Amino acid sequence: MTHIIPVIMSGGAGSRLWPLSRQANPKQLLPLVTEQTMVQETVERFDSEMFSDPVFICNALHVDAILAQMSDIGRAVDACIVEPVGRNTAPCAVVAACHAAKRKDSLVMLVPADHHVKNPAAFRSAIKRAVPAAKDGYLVTFGITPDAPETGYGYIARGEALEDGVYKVDAFREKPDTATAQKYLDDGSYAWNAGIFLFSPESFLAEAEAHAAPIAKEARRAYEASDAQNNVIHLDADIFGACPSESIDYAVMEHTQKAAVVPCDIGWNDIGSFTSLQAARAAISHDGQGNAVNGSVMTERSENCLVQTDGLPVSLVGVSNLAVIVNDGEVLVVNLDESQAVKNIVTRLKEGGETERL
Amino acid sequence: MTHIIPVIMSGGAGSRLWPLSRQANPKQLLPLVTEQTMVQETVERFDSEMFSDPVFICNALHVDAILAQMSDIGRAVDACIVEPVGRNTAPCAVVAACHAAKRKDSLVMLVPADHHVKNPAAFRSAIKRAVPAAKDGYLVTFGITPDAPETGYGYIARGEALEDGVYKVDAFREKPDTATAQKYLDDGSYAWNAGIFLFSPESFLAEAEAHAAPIAKEARRAYEASDAQNNVIHLDADIFGACPSESIDYAVMEHTQKAAVVPCDIGWNDIGSFTSLQAARAAISHDGQGNAVNGSVMTERSENCLVQTDGLPVSLVGVSNLAVIVNDGEVLVVNLDESQAVKNIVTRLKEGGETERL
Repeated sequence: MTHIIPVIMSGGAGSRLWPLSRQANPKQLLPLVTEQTMVQETVERFDSEMFSDPVFICNALHVDAILAQMSDIGRAVDACIVEPVGRNTAPCAVVAACHAAKRKDSLVMLVPADHHVKNPAAFRSAIKRAVPAAKDGYLVTFGITPDAPETGYGYIARGEALEDGVYKVDAFREKPDTATAQKYLDDGSYAWNAGIFLFSPESFLAEAEAHAAPIAKEARRAYEASDAQNNVIHLDADIFGACPSESIDYAVMEHTQKAAVVPCDIGWNDIGSFTSLQAARAAISHDGQGNAVNGSVMTERSENCLVQTDGLPVSLVGVSNLAVIVNDGEVLVVNLDESQAVKNIVTRLKEGGETERL
Repeated sequence: MTHIIPVIMSGGAGSRLWPLSRQANPKQLLPLVTEQTMVQETVERFDSEMFSDPVFICNALHVDAILAQMSDIGRAVDACIVEPVGRNTAPCAVVAACHAAKRKDSLVMLVPADHHVKNPAAFRSAIKRAVPAAKDGYLVTFGITPDAPETGYGYIARGEALEDGVYKVDAFREKPDTATAQKYLDDGSYAWNAGIFLFSPESFLAEAEAHAAPIAKEARRAYEASDAQNNVIHLDADIFGACPSESIDYAVMEHTQKAAVVPCDIGWNDIGSFTSLQAARAAISHDGQGNAVNGSVMTERSENCLVQTDGLPVSLVGVSNLAVIVNDGEVLVVNLDESQAVKNIVTRLKEGGETERL
């Protein structure tokens, strides 16, 4: 029987959600959309007989919090693999494959820790559709059916059908301009690249060795030289530190002949900015004017705002399309049309040496 | 020699500047525009040989703060007259006149405590122009030369000239709609009614008795029955409480044949909302993008905002034309085009019994 091992990439910092997301307590550890934290939501998505206990790949700072959050929802953890430094997703995927390869007849379900999926049942159906192709050696990516000409995501063009609902990848496309994004949307054969993968470890390692040999070699060595304490596995710091930093897309997916895509419509949201957080929360509940609020909040002639406060009461008058965040000693007011620029504030705090505020 | 006695009406609550302005610490007691509080600014405006020591008319809650703020700038106070309840400006003016009438050859300079005047020298020149008419028995009002079709103020139409720069009032006009305001602006003979007056106490009392007898009678009785402790004079609560509540304009100025106006251009701003506070502060200093900020503030792609924080650092991203106020346990975010609606929040807090937040 095939074991699908969820490998949850939890290394991110989520600086576009500062000051909610902080270095010691980043996005994936927060209950951003529901009452569960993002890692809890992510794990619950794989709560079916298809899946083994999850593996986390994370920063040493977050191991205890992840284990505690899993304990809180009564979930066993196969392993926490600790990255001494972040090296993007390609080395991460190699490590995941090395870990999974120790178990016969397994597949790796590689997912980010900080995405929201409104319809997990639809996601599990898509995974089921993907299993035969993955067992055949395809590196299967899950492409999100677009509902708007988004310019913030890469796109995947599908090619010939392998079986019902599973296609070879024709091409990966960079983040497009608006006109191109509209063309992709109208075309109907493009999907958003959500960075979610299903593959057999042997097939992935072979493709990584073929297309990204230094990464495959160094990440494997770092895993093999790791220091395990119970189920916490520390990758070798020197070796992993020397591994090139690259994304799984650039290093492997864009080069392999074995890329496949399963288009799916699962209510996916990467919660990549306050704009998408507002959309995800308002889709669950709002005040009738599109305001999604948490904490002591009064609104007057205001609409489509996201407000969250962990203390001081917040009052809004005559505003729309803003996020107002009061969290852990910081106040942020951001236009939801410019929410990507929140990271500029984080950059300035870093450059100014104000690390205690990060 | 004529004594001009500044009588500073300090009874207001300033709810449109909540949460800066609070019941215990309202607008006039705050350093809103400069480093001086509004009452300090107001008194400094009368720092010339023309003027006697000031008289304050205020709420009992604020006497100590007013005396302390005067002491801080080394100014003697003629008297603090304490209103047991607020009864609008007409009873206030009667009380001022009764107090001033005890001194021979005096004039009352009746002014709100919470206005900003950028050019006090021009204001003093206008007062000098007004003195002969006031001594002749005219109730002189200072009309602000408009520089925009403001709909938030009443207007004064001037009539025949009494002397250079002093006119009989032709009519007082209610707050106009935009088209009418534009007509007034284009016409050139209209001025904003700023609620600033110069009159002889005897003449004002005679006009008040002629046009608003109950107010003249009850306010005078309340003053005559007052209880004085040193220079703090408590009006009789029962009598003053029974006095009708009315503005000096409705009760007297719109009826008397003795109304005069001195048009003047003195950089006047009533700081009646966060919009005018932003304008007044930015006129003194801003960050190059029109943001007037106080406290720990970072801005990113933001302009024409007013930001003030007494504690938590505030970051703005991609916003314009907002006031963001963090003060004494409250956070307010308000669109400067809708800043009048701040009072709706105050009303809701009152109605909800949240008096500790007012």
